[in-house]
Amino acid sequence: MALPIAVLVSGGGSNLQSIIDRIESGTLDAEIRLVLSNKPDAYGLTRARNHGIPAVALEHTRYGSREEFDQAMVRTIRDHGAESVILAGFMRILTSEFLNAFPGRVLNIHPALLPSFPGAHGQRDAADYGVRIAGCTVHFVDEKMDHGPVIIQAAVPARPGEDEETLGGRILTLEHRIYPQAVQWLAQGRLRMAGRHVQLDPSEAAPAPQPENALVNPPLENGF
Amino acid sequence: MALPIAVLVSGGGSNLQSIIDRIESGTLDAEIRLVLSNKPDAYGLTRARNHGIPAVALEHTRYGSREEFDQAMVRTIRDHGAESVILAGFMRILTSEFLNAFPGRVLNIHPALLPSFPGAHGQRDAADYGVRIAGCTVHFVDEKMDHGPVIIQAAVPARPGEDEETLGGRILTLEHRIYPQAVQWLAQGRLRMAGRHVQLDPSEAAPAPQPENALVNPPLENGF
Repeated sequence: MALPIAVLVSGGGSNLQSIIDRIESGTLDAEIRLVLSNKPDAYGLTRARNHGIPAVALEHTRYGSREEFDQAMVRTIRDHGAESVILAGFMRILTSEFLNAFPGRVLNIHPALLPSFPGAHGQRDAADYGVRIAGCTVHFVDEKMDHGPVIIQAAVPARPGEDEETLGGRILTLEHRIYPQAVQWLAQGRLRMAGRHVQLDPSEAAPAPQPENALVNPPLENGF
Repeated sequence: MALPIAVLVSGGGSNLQSIIDRIESGTLDAEIRLVLSNKPDAYGLTRARNHGIPAVALEHTRYGSREEFDQAMVRTIRDHGAESVILAGFMRILTSEFLNAFPGRVLNIHPALLPSFPGAHGQRDAADYGVRIAGCTVHFVDEKMDHGPVIIQAAVPARPGEDEETLGGRILTLEHRIYPQAVQWLAQGRLRMAGRHVQLDPSEAAPAPQPENALVNPPLENGF
């Protein structure tokens, strides 16, 4: 049975699109029960409607507290039958009450090799720092921003002095590959968490003997 | 003319050995004028003597201040005719007075993808965090620990729950390749610094169109 998911967006939702595309192509065994946004004008909601997916806006500014907002989101997500939550550019910190409603079932993607460059400007911060290897990270969400156990990371070369957009575009290309892969692993029930360590079951093959051949780790599987 | 360098060690100095090996094989156009240690029993000093390289111990505990110790190091390095300084597991922070004596000519290697995991336990901290991509960084040294402009980084896959030694060994294999490469670029006068950004001259070729094919960036050149 397809994994019933909710995708949360605050903006354009290009990662949402990559998930929709993988579902429609039959690669990703998930069903988006709803796309939820805290911004009624988020383009991600339009993407959802374009594909016949329920789109709901809940404006956080209309709630008296973070807790009330999160409770409303939990109700809405459950009402649509979603059991896992995929953050795709959702710019709100979630309360532990929200996270406890979906234990081990809330994923986020961040455009940096965490723990480097957490926060809202991962690509820009990496470009400013002058890193030579940048990347992106899919992780389980915990109460701290961009902090939970890592599922998959991808690294890309960065060039000195290149701008945020160029580097960010190269990172985004990989985001669109690793996020559907991570959701597929979740759908397959293959992610085992032990403390901060996330093991992919069945036990992963050994890394390639030439480590420089591997840039996406765990390696992408067929179709991703 | 070969670049006259001093290599500073506090311990085993396996990165020193990789530099010695590349020099002796004719790949790296440098000459180690001395190996200097703040610990008289550092095995790096023995490595130096085994290859006929002057080995000097200056015990930092015998100096009244960090400044006096650094002044003694500068004198010793200059007395041996070295003009660039290569830190290879040298576990002391350098004063700005030391750095000003060799402007843009002090390099360090760190076993993590900086700015992730600075400090004395890069590999262990990466293993504990549960990163999926770990690595190493060669950078120019500034007054802050593991902070200066990045020259080259290499990324290796990490596996969940693997121990520090296994991951550290995989990282070390790449350290031994990227550090001699970085020193060679320094010897060739090809490193241009603009703020935090280090450009490799002549201007670097574009990254490969498939970014996941590149793991060492800038790409290693022939012989490294």
